Amino acid sequence: MRDCKDISAAQAAARLREKDNILILCHQKPDGDTLGCGFALLYALRDMGKNARISCSDGFSARYDFLYFGEDFGSQPPMEAEYVVAVDVADTQLLGDANMQWSERIDLCIDHHPSNKRYAGELLLDADACATCEIFYRVLCELDVPLTKRIATCLYTGLATDTGCFRYSGVSAETHIQAARMLEAGADFFPINERMFETRSLARMEIERLAMDTLEYHYDNRLAIITIGREMLEKTGASDEELDGISAIPRRIEGVVAAVTARRKDGQTYRISMRTNAGVDASKVCGSLGGGGHARAAGCTLSGELCDVKRQIVAALKPAFDALDAQS
Amino acid sequence: MRDCKDISAAQAAARLREKDNILILCHQKPDGDTLGCGFALLYALRDMGKNARISCSDGFSARYDFLYFGEDFGSQPPMEAEYVVAVDVADTQLLGDANMQWSERIDLCIDHHPSNKRYAGELLLDADACATCEIFYRVLCELDVPLTKRIATCLYTGLATDTGCFRYSGVSAETHIQAARMLEAGADFFPINERMFETRSLARMEIERLAMDTLEYHYDNRLAIITIGREMLEKTGASDEELDGISAIPRRIEGVVAAVTARRKDGQTYRISMRTNAGVDASKVCGSLGGGGHARAAGCTLSGELCDVKRQIVAALKPAFDALDAQS
Repeated sequence: MRDCKDISAAQAAARLREKDNILILCHQKPDGDTLGCGFALLYALRDMGKNARISCSDGFSARYDFLYFGEDFGSQPPMEAEYVVAVDVADTQLLGDANMQWSERIDLCIDHHPSNKRYAGELLLDADACATCEIFYRVLCELDVPLTKRIATCLYTGLATDTGCFRYSGVSAETHIQAARMLEAGADFFPINERMFETRSLARMEIERLAMDTLEYHYDNRLAIITIGREMLEKTGASDEELDGISAIPRRIEGVVAAVTARRKDGQTYRISMRTNAGVDASKVCGSLGGGGHARAAGCTLSGELCDVKRQIVAALKPAFDALDAQS
Repeated sequence: MRDCKDISAAQAAARLREKDNILILCHQKPDGDTLGCGFALLYALRDMGKNARISCSDGFSARYDFLYFGEDFGSQPPMEAEYVVAVDVADTQLLGDANMQWSERIDLCIDHHPSNKRYAGELLLDADACATCEIFYRVLCELDVPLTKRIATCLYTGLATDTGCFRYSGVSAETHIQAARMLEAGADFFPINERMFETRSLARMEIERLAMDTLEYHYDNRLAIITIGREMLEKTGASDEELDGISAIPRRIEGVVAAVTARRKDGQTYRISMRTNAGVDASKVCGSLGGGGHARAAGCTLSGELCDVKRQIVAALKPAFDALDAQS
């Protein structure tokens, strides 16, 4: 592991001002924050007259094409990288296969994940920031680069997508003030929000519908379980990306404190995702089933017939519900 | 109709400073904006040492109890009202039965609906504001009343609920700047957002699931129709409030440009709600079926067997889809 030095936004700006031929790396399975920050940095560097490239192991999907402003980033001319910046990448593992070659050569990392592995030469980290874009805006302010519509669109995308459109607890007054700046600079936020938060593919709607048909309740409707069978995936053609967030659905039901999604993998193996509200420690429950995770989101893998798998989950949650009952 | 005078936020503040024994009226079927603004005004007037009451024909439901801060507003002591303020009430019809007695006596109306009927003695209207709360914050700034946590909680609620949590096109830089002020003043926004946007009742989840089972597509998946039968309402026990927003669901499907919800009323009568994206004029289509509304949201009432009702809808949309096909 290299020595990793923590630096400030002003220091990060100073580095970017000095360097040229800069390669920007996003994490694999890219989201709005890594792409938003990556493209904001790219456009800012170009506006400073510098040569820069952006790369993501999984490429740049059509879902985020409003960040590309008509340019085809699948076919950038080659460049000898002199300075490498990773944005929103907590761990070099997340660079993905195609960009793993850079894992030992990252000069600067800008990130908001508390789990950041400190793999870069220099690190600009703020674990309290709601998004890496929020941190990068501070760098931009130090750079004396105008906040163009293009950059504002990128930064708004990161702020909005990493906060569920300003819903989550990580949002701060600074987040909203930055969002205001992005709107003033012309970020066309409404179509972005429609695309990011409203629109779902037909396959996603179908898999949600089929999953909802499997919904069952236990412990006075406080535990909700849904099942995703392989036949559902085949029938709907839903991709892994389209399954994102499915586990969150049963947690939304009023009164549900533990929501479980059992997704069938190979043979009789099920991948269990558990989301809980305050009162049930998902990490403890999944830990007792050989898995692990966080207090509010954890997982494990179970084998057997579906009915037995469910029985194991219900049994593992009994102590938690007994404790809740004892409190009330 | 009384003469209605347009006034500024500063003038509205001057009136409120002069008056005492102030009655605040919210609209029926209250939402987060009318209640948020009503309670913010109530708490501000109290902080100014004034006597004030708040009233809503439909009472104050538990859904918004975080605005009441432990107080029971169902049992306020009586008061002789000297000055009556309606907040977010576009038309006296919306006061509801219990408060209709005040319809000729409203001194001040604060509102953001372009359709405001100018029924009050004085009107503070800004049709560009995303919420009545956004307008009231300008009044509050003129009043020299501190933005307490209580008032900030109320105003945040109106800003968030009337914009789908800062998603919709009505949001401006001012909206985000105000939201930042509310967070700085201690508004506990995360549980509010969870309650307003994440949590759904079991009955609502059930009716969504049943409605999704009726989903059918026409015109190459660009028209989606769902049906709500009376047996679904009976089976789930879903209330009218719980049906709110159901029509928006099929519109979210990628590629859908016209979404229709057919809800069975008495006998063989169906209430049709149509939501469309750019390209299909819902008001024109529903107009051709004897109804009306706006370009993106309209409705009508149709009678007959369900299959015939659907056939009428599909036929009424044919010219719009033909026109779309001709363009592409």
